[in-house]
Amino acid sequence: MERLPGFRDFYPEPLPNADAWSADARNHIFRAWRETARRYGFREYDGPPLESLELFTLKSGDEIVDQLFNFVDKGERAVAMRPEMTPTLARMIATSERAYKKPIKWFALPQLFRYEKQQKGRLREHFQLNCDIFGEADTAADAELIALLIDTLRALGLSSDDFVIRLSSRNAWQEFFAKRCADESKAYAFYQVIDKLARESAENSHARLAALGFSLDEVRAFIAAGEPTAELRSVLDSLTARGLGAFVQVDYNVIRGLAYYTGVVFEAFDKKGEFRAIAGGGRYNNLVKLISGGKVDLPALGFGMGDVVLLELIKSRGLLPKFTAGVDVVALVEDEALRPETLALVQRLREAGFAADFSLVPVKGDKQFKRALELGAAHTVRLERSPEGEVVARLKHLQTREEKVLAPDTVVAALGR
Amino acid sequence: MERLPGFRDFYPEPLPNADAWSADARNHIFRAWRETARRYGFREYDGPPLESLELFTLKSGDEIVDQLFNFVDKGERAVAMRPEMTPTLARMIATSERAYKKPIKWFALPQLFRYEKQQKGRLREHFQLNCDIFGEADTAADAELIALLIDTLRALGLSSDDFVIRLSSRNAWQEFFAKRCADESKAYAFYQVIDKLARESAENSHARLAALGFSLDEVRAFIAAGEPTAELRSVLDSLTARGLGAFVQVDYNVIRGLAYYTGVVFEAFDKKGEFRAIAGGGRYNNLVKLISGGKVDLPALGFGMGDVVLLELIKSRGLLPKFTAGVDVVALVEDEALRPETLALVQRLREAGFAADFSLVPVKGDKQFKRALELGAAHTVRLERSPEGEVVARLKHLQTREEKVLAPDTVVAALGR
Repeated sequence: MERLPGFRDFYPEPLPNADAWSADARNHIFRAWRETARRYGFREYDGPPLESLELFTLKSGDEIVDQLFNFVDKGERAVAMRPEMTPTLARMIATSERAYKKPIKWFALPQLFRYEKQQKGRLREHFQLNCDIFGEADTAADAELIALLIDTLRALGLSSDDFVIRLSSRNAWQEFFAKRCADESKAYAFYQVIDKLARESAENSHARLAALGFSLDEVRAFIAAGEPTAELRSVLDSLTARGLGAFVQVDYNVIRGLAYYTGVVFEAFDKKGEFRAIAGGGRYNNLVKLISGGKVDLPALGFGMGDVVLLELIKSRGLLPKFTAGVDVVALVEDEALRPETLALVQRLREAGFAADFSLVPVKGDKQFKRALELGAAHTVRLERSPEGEVVARLKHLQTREEKVLAPDTVVAALGR
Repeated sequence: MERLPGFRDFYPEPLPNADAWSADARNHIFRAWRETARRYGFREYDGPPLESLELFTLKSGDEIVDQLFNFVDKGERAVAMRPEMTPTLARMIATSERAYKKPIKWFALPQLFRYEKQQKGRLREHFQLNCDIFGEADTAADAELIALLIDTLRALGLSSDDFVIRLSSRNAWQEFFAKRCADESKAYAFYQVIDKLARESAENSHARLAALGFSLDEVRAFIAAGEPTAELRSVLDSLTARGLGAFVQVDYNVIRGLAYYTGVVFEAFDKKGEFRAIAGGGRYNNLVKLISGGKVDLPALGFGMGDVVLLELIKSRGLLPKFTAGVDVVALVEDEALRPETLALVQRLREAGFAADFSLVPVKGDKQFKRALELGAAHTVRLERSPEGEVVARLKHLQTREEKVLAPDTVVAALGR
């Protein structure tokens, strides 16, 4: 019975084989995501992993269906496993935004699904941090969102030596476009050429731009100048005031392929250029209106950060901690007659918040001790009968090898709780 | 654009409408689940929400297909969204158990999916805590697992006044059966009658038992006697030694409908009998062998606890905390000239681990203060220019209304970090 291709099993460390993903590493990333969002006053939400197919085609067109896990359910509904969170979020916001003070600052950690064409090692699911702000048109919101993105990466130990936020603007490109072309219907095709500039040959880009009435040289000159627009200047000023100026640079190569971005856009990259983008996002002021059928109109912006590239990056920078079983105390049972008292002690330790473990069945003392070392326990505790016939606890700190003999009732207090 | 029936949107509190589920309450339950599992030395794992259909039919027979979100994917694979975690877990254990010391104690918090027949308010997904132990045949493992179940409910504030674990045994029933019937092939049909005893009329149960050669009276006498078997006695002794004896009682009405249980079985119920079972589980020593095609043979046991009944129960007992935005400090900007310094201060607060928020754009002072109260902030901080022209911070504790005026650099320290 095999796992489906492109899906992952997450195991506790140490990992059993090269094919296994680390549940501990995943939770380490999740904790950093949640903790940073909390510090920024973002609130968590979630939505269904399965939605109407139409929710996704409405936003992305029918082409997206080729990349979806979609089907017809037993109630004859065309449904799809979510390939992204934004349509669900826009649906939730459109239904409920009136109940919330603006700006709404929300985040989620959804698992997302895409039926990618079969390729070795290519995943068909991943987890993604989604952070979004609704109801604030000012660029102060863009700066707040980008600061959150920067601090999320810093929470994992990454510094300005490791990554940079490339900042750009659909408005800057819109202005560039409008100065040279009056036919607004060509704008999206133009953006697509810009989006592919780095990956395409100069010949191809030149030809495509020429077909739209642009020259590759003037496009290149515009990018090389990198003159920030007033909105980008304001975002940069806010980030600089926060002491985060070193993490960001204007780069008009970034334009984001998706049709729905409307203002400031940005992507996070590793500085060595070894990996795909770590995160990306921007303004999408028209999407809530689209999803709500015109009923709700709210300025919006957000970013997504996947777990896969992020994990590769922090691994390659040596920033992934060593994960252990996280056991604080192992209770050793050498005298089976004292097992009931040991169970009571383990229970007291657990009730005091310690992670406590013990051998469920009789095992030789040296094996129990070896297991305590493997579990990375800080302490062992063993009940003994003293020469006077009293039950005492022998508490040992495994690193310092310091031992204390004390009454079983006082072990929790001796451990500082 | 509507949500699919039976699926939930999770919103931050306060909730926008009666149809919304609380993301805060869900995370409150998730934290209790994770934290208790940690104290018991259980490690987290996860698997794919989508699996081969065969993984589920292998365990539960073809009848289960009617209740699944199943489909044929673009690679012509028959697949299904997971209706339970155990088959995935058994698959993972069968592949990788050799790499782990026994007993393996693992937990997961999967979202599970079932295409239930349409019924008002009936959900088609829920979250479930799954805790399992592999590689230990001794009843000490059953006691450890049941202790974890009890402490998970206690972690949410529930006491022995609120719930009870009904403890039973397939072996006890097996013995009862074998004494009276030599035809082992009838055993599963017999278990099914016992499982439905409480819900069926006495006439129906009587007729079904008679057809199998049993009398309802002797079944009732066996249940009423409730004489613990040696294995149940040993589980009870271990729980009593832990001080958890008051949470459990032998009840042979419990037998668990599923075919694959092999030993001790149990269910957690609210004592008032208002709700469906809170949790259920037991031994399933043959399942790993079945899923691995005979390659791996490991004793196993586990339980599942869903989020929906649990939430109803803790709500009804008044045990759900009041959730706020969790903001520690709100920075007020009254003098817009000091916004850059305020941004720097907010950044320092966030870097020190505080949840800090502020108005992104100029807003009247009283409105900012009102917002701080709504956010449930403990403190506000406001930068001002002193008569001497210095920038000072006015830090206010909102509950005591105590104010301090101090240098902006010292605010983090004044808050105790």
